[in-house]
Amino acid sequence: MDITSDTHSQHISRQFNQELEELKTHLMAMGGLVEQQIQEAVSALLEGDSRLAERVRDNDKAVNDMQLKIDDECTRVLARRQPAASDLRLVLAVIRATSDLERIGDEASKIARNALSLIEANQGAKGVVEVRHISEHVRKMLRDALTAFARFDIELALEVVHEDDSVDSEYASAMRSLMTFMMEDPRAISPVLNVMWILRALERIGDHANNLAEYVVYLVKGLDIRHVDPEELDEAAIKRQD
Amino acid sequence: MDITSDTHSQHISRQFNQELEELKTHLMAMGGLVEQQIQEAVSALLEGDSRLAERVRDNDKAVNDMQLKIDDECTRVLARRQPAASDLRLVLAVIRATSDLERIGDEASKIARNALSLIEANQGAKGVVEVRHISEHVRKMLRDALTAFARFDIELALEVVHEDDSVDSEYASAMRSLMTFMMEDPRAISPVLNVMWILRALERIGDHANNLAEYVVYLVKGLDIRHVDPEELDEAAIKRQD
Repeated sequence: MDITSDTHSQHISRQFNQELEELKTHLMAMGGLVEQQIQEAVSALLEGDSRLAERVRDNDKAVNDMQLKIDDECTRVLARRQPAASDLRLVLAVIRATSDLERIGDEASKIARNALSLIEANQGAKGVVEVRHISEHVRKMLRDALTAFARFDIELALEVVHEDDSVDSEYASAMRSLMTFMMEDPRAISPVLNVMWILRALERIGDHANNLAEYVVYLVKGLDIRHVDPEELDEAAIKRQD
Repeated sequence: MDITSDTHSQHISRQFNQELEELKTHLMAMGGLVEQQIQEAVSALLEGDSRLAERVRDNDKAVNDMQLKIDDECTRVLARRQPAASDLRLVLAVIRATSDLERIGDEASKIARNALSLIEANQGAKGVVEVRHISEHVRKMLRDALTAFARFDIELALEVVHEDDSVDSEYASAMRSLMTFMMEDPRAISPVLNVMWILRALERIGDHANNLAEYVVYLVKGLDIRHVDPEELDEAAIKRQD
């Protein structure tokens, strides 16, 4: 190979690596934005701040735009670079991840809209303690899933997958208490329903964070662990696998 | 080009086209299965058939397996064939579509589980008329979206996108009546909540059918219309665009 072409191919490969790095960077920025959306939607509820709730609702557009932009970058990389093996898996994992982050953004926006209804009806809501608790839990899952993605960290990703089960049981227990509140005080039905929708949105966010963690296992190890029961995951084998 | 290599490249291209056709065929099979899951979940509710509800719940695994299989086929096509332009868009649209179909499968399974709770509690549920009506509506959307995908039919896809708005307003109105039932009869709270979860699942199915229709526009025209308000879609321009 002559020197010119060698330099040329090194140049291409450096550019390609840079493009892959940018995809990751943009995904992390999108993740940061949706995490902020969740945090602000819940703060709006807890502090009765209707302007903050409106801002979260209106900011959903920015999340959607980021998805379109990143997906477009992924398509260009696929078309121009025709990546294989782990590079291909990275691009596919980013495409899947933007879809989950976009849906998390939708859920944050639902939380904001339900918070607005509660604030407008001037209802001191039951179940707010549970909302705070579960929201902290799923935000931690989301942060950890994003960190695992950025660092290709399988161990952290598997921790997130296991956390999802405990969010699900916290959610089920919170829903049961809310149903009891409703039965005891039928005037509370409407505001309690708003809180139920908020809890449901948080539970869905936990599911999406779990999906993100599964993509990390896919991109690092090439194993698709979606739809595998966390109890049945052979983690030692996943960590060993190359 | 000598004849041998020409024959070889025709052979490759015929195989490639066949692989793309198979992706579509498998996607349609998955679509048929999830449509049946919705139909049976709703029948189980309407006819109080707990064995049918259990079957739907247990069948969700088959939906998940189909997603993994089709996604794996897509990854192989990307790695081996390195498709460009409309072929690349088809593969990406199939990957996105399996994700929506899998989520529709999850929603059908949720409907089945809520139907089971209602049947076990022996509750003749309020809101069943609305469930029947909205379920027929979203099943039609799903069927049309799949047909539009199979035929690359933009007009039909755009019809589905517009239908989603009317499902959303039927859903909102059904939820309001259910809330009134609850307030009038607090003993009905628990069964009415089951019906609310079922309606919510149906509304989500409509959203996913809408997504499928958007992918058809993407794959045929290369236009990403996700997050565009249906009112603001310039359909004439979409149909003209090449």
